[in-house]
Amino acid sequence: MTDTIKIGLLGAGTVGSGVIKVLRENAAAIKARVGTELVIAKVLVRDAKKTRPELTGLAVVEDVEEILQDPSISVVVEVMGGTTPSKDYMLRAMEAGKSVVTANKDVVAEYGQEMFAMAEKHRVAFLFEASVGGGIPIIAPLKRSLTANRLTEVMGIVNGTTNYMLTRMAEAKVGYEQALQEAQAKGYAEADPTADVAGMDAARKAAILASLAFNTRISLRDVYVEGITRITADDISYASDLGYAVKLLAVGQDISGKGVSVRVHPVFLPQNHPLAAVNGVYNAIFLKGNAIGEAMFYGPGAGSLPTASAVVADIIEAARAKIGGSLEGLGCTCYAAKPLCPIAEIESCYYVRLWVDDEPGVLGNIATAFGNAQVSLKSVIQTKPSVEGRTEIVAITHLVEHRKLNEALASLRELKVVDDIRNVIRVEKDRG
Amino acid sequence: MTDTIKIGLLGAGTVGSGVIKVLRENAAAIKARVGTELVIAKVLVRDAKKTRPELTGLAVVEDVEEILQDPSISVVVEVMGGTTPSKDYMLRAMEAGKSVVTANKDVVAEYGQEMFAMAEKHRVAFLFEASVGGGIPIIAPLKRSLTANRLTEVMGIVNGTTNYMLTRMAEAKVGYEQALQEAQAKGYAEADPTADVAGMDAARKAAILASLAFNTRISLRDVYVEGITRITADDISYASDLGYAVKLLAVGQDISGKGVSVRVHPVFLPQNHPLAAVNGVYNAIFLKGNAIGEAMFYGPGAGSLPTASAVVADIIEAARAKIGGSLEGLGCTCYAAKPLCPIAEIESCYYVRLWVDDEPGVLGNIATAFGNAQVSLKSVIQTKPSVEGRTEIVAITHLVEHRKLNEALASLRELKVVDDIRNVIRVEKDRG
Repeated sequence: MTDTIKIGLLGAGTVGSGVIKVLRENAAAIKARVGTELVIAKVLVRDAKKTRPELTGLAVVEDVEEILQDPSISVVVEVMGGTTPSKDYMLRAMEAGKSVVTANKDVVAEYGQEMFAMAEKHRVAFLFEASVGGGIPIIAPLKRSLTANRLTEVMGIVNGTTNYMLTRMAEAKVGYEQALQEAQAKGYAEADPTADVAGMDAARKAAILASLAFNTRISLRDVYVEGITRITADDISYASDLGYAVKLLAVGQDISGKGVSVRVHPVFLPQNHPLAAVNGVYNAIFLKGNAIGEAMFYGPGAGSLPTASAVVADIIEAARAKIGGSLEGLGCTCYAAKPLCPIAEIESCYYVRLWVDDEPGVLGNIATAFGNAQVSLKSVIQTKPSVEGRTEIVAITHLVEHRKLNEALASLRELKVVDDIRNVIRVEKDRG
Repeated sequence: MTDTIKIGLLGAGTVGSGVIKVLRENAAAIKARVGTELVIAKVLVRDAKKTRPELTGLAVVEDVEEILQDPSISVVVEVMGGTTPSKDYMLRAMEAGKSVVTANKDVVAEYGQEMFAMAEKHRVAFLFEASVGGGIPIIAPLKRSLTANRLTEVMGIVNGTTNYMLTRMAEAKVGYEQALQEAQAKGYAEADPTADVAGMDAARKAAILASLAFNTRISLRDVYVEGITRITADDISYASDLGYAVKLLAVGQDISGKGVSVRVHPVFLPQNHPLAAVNGVYNAIFLKGNAIGEAMFYGPGAGSLPTASAVVADIIEAARAKIGGSLEGLGCTCYAAKPLCPIAEIESCYYVRLWVDDEPGVLGNIATAFGNAQVSLKSVIQTKPSVEGRTEIVAITHLVEHRKLNEALASLRELKVVDDIRNVIRVEKDRG
């Protein structure tokens, strides 16, 4: 029995401080559960002279070599973020025979294959529960609890910033700009919110989720991405009237005969979908599998302590692997190389909001134009008053290929009565 | 590397057939994920001559010894249900050095300690993911993903029958009897529904959840139980008007300075609580921990394939333990012996529905009576018309000890104007 497992912590920011706090506050319980003490031996910081209360009693170092070359440290925890130098530090830690735990979605989504190859070569664990969904246990359930399933779909609300904004737009009926300002005021959005609102943060998580769900390597560049920047108060209002909630989803599908599709885009979700009730900065991941049917995992998508909950769970897994001398269940699960399905071939229902000349028969003309382009409609509505001879029409299509929808939109643009296509958003089909 | 892991299956009913189907349909994927083939070597049935299509190609046996004494079988899967003879079969399988996987909530809730002691003695795994929440991964997340937390509360919708009934009563506004008949017609309720509607099925699951969440042994006899048999259409209607959903919850709390409380009873849940949106036969388990904050796990609470999803996940864990030669993370986690908190000391808000004489000032008299018994009220309402000089009053209390509430009810019963206390249901406090 190992007496203590020594940890080297790379970074003492928001997540790092949380890790220190969780390991400290729950030390006795963790020792009872694991059978071994988990001790932070060294913390890598930029400036060791800067005293911070949470680092009291810990050995702080400025040189990463003091951790990488310390043979007594068996687990390295990377919570610095970014890819440089984090990625190299992690690779070198594994080369030195140390297991690595990280919260770094960038490295996992872009360099997962390289990381796993190194872990396998040196027979260490490479764990990243905190990289998706903050505190929500999702990576371990995918690797363990759902292994009996062939998963066909994973849909996640994995970005708290945008979910907060969309929730405020729906509940308080504020516009996009005000929702963004509120998110920034609350510290949920960065001064430059691009990575969140443009969908790139969600895209990294989508790549990680799809890789695990479908056992095939999906990188960031394989993900089709649309953000929420074009969503207006009007879209939210139409959604609500039609019985939908608007959510930014990370979607992965393993489609029989077509391949794997991974994408991030806004979706109109039926109000009775389990994800529709996930509001504010909460995250949730919804799955479909051939044995389980449907399942959902819900929890805080970010924050110091929730993220630390996931990081420390991984540290415990790494410790158990060391104690038991077995990496079973922890290795790379991307054993298949499945083809990608091009976005053009993906079928969806769509919401199309048009600005048109308000003349007699315009609603019929629009419906006919969709029909001529072989896109069948579920409904067309015109609920708003006319403004200076123009009005808004909203069409909801039945299932149609992305390619075909684009052809229909192109022909609509040719129509004299169509002044603008104001927005196009996918609609998730109703639940039976 | 072990070439194949051989499984002995005890029982080929609903869950057993699901296990056979899942292992067969997903054989290739499971082999790729585990690195070893999982093969059902023998199936114990009552009548081996009865041919059933799902057993084609499998060795069926009527004598359990053919499985227990077969040294090539390393995992025994018990899906017969009941405690006799299931419990003895499982104990003997472990004595013979075989890991045991079960879906049997009765045995785990009543004899967990004995089962774990045997597993530890013979260094085998005893796994029971399917005993709570059907297909939902909850046992493994409690043992692994949430280990970094001190959990303070677990609340679950863990009985699909009663959740279906309560959902129908709320959505279709049917009464208790009709909801029960519908559940029976759909196969969700037994001809004798007592175990479900009286809360005993949920109580077993509550005992298992609380044992894992709080690391202390909770048995069925430690659980305070109220069922849904007294819930009427009127209660559901008041709940809805007041902004609540009525759910039968399995609740566990680890209360600082008081001890652990485990109970099953109906609850008025605020509509914005994540559990309030869990409808029909779905189950969900909601947790609070000092690192993660809140999390929820949602999915199908029963059914052949969902339950098999959980059983096969455990078979895979047992196989990985055998391949890796390590039981780390799979053992008993009840290392603490925490005191139980008596129900009398548990604080809750309450809904109290009274049938009273409709005379001037009656609402004030009732409110005063609560006040005299030192129970403070959040609201008292009288919304229904008077019937033959009597009317209904509903009071919602602030937080009050169960003991104190009972004293107040006793003194209300003494009042001349109070004809009947029609129902008393706990109310979960509003979410900020």
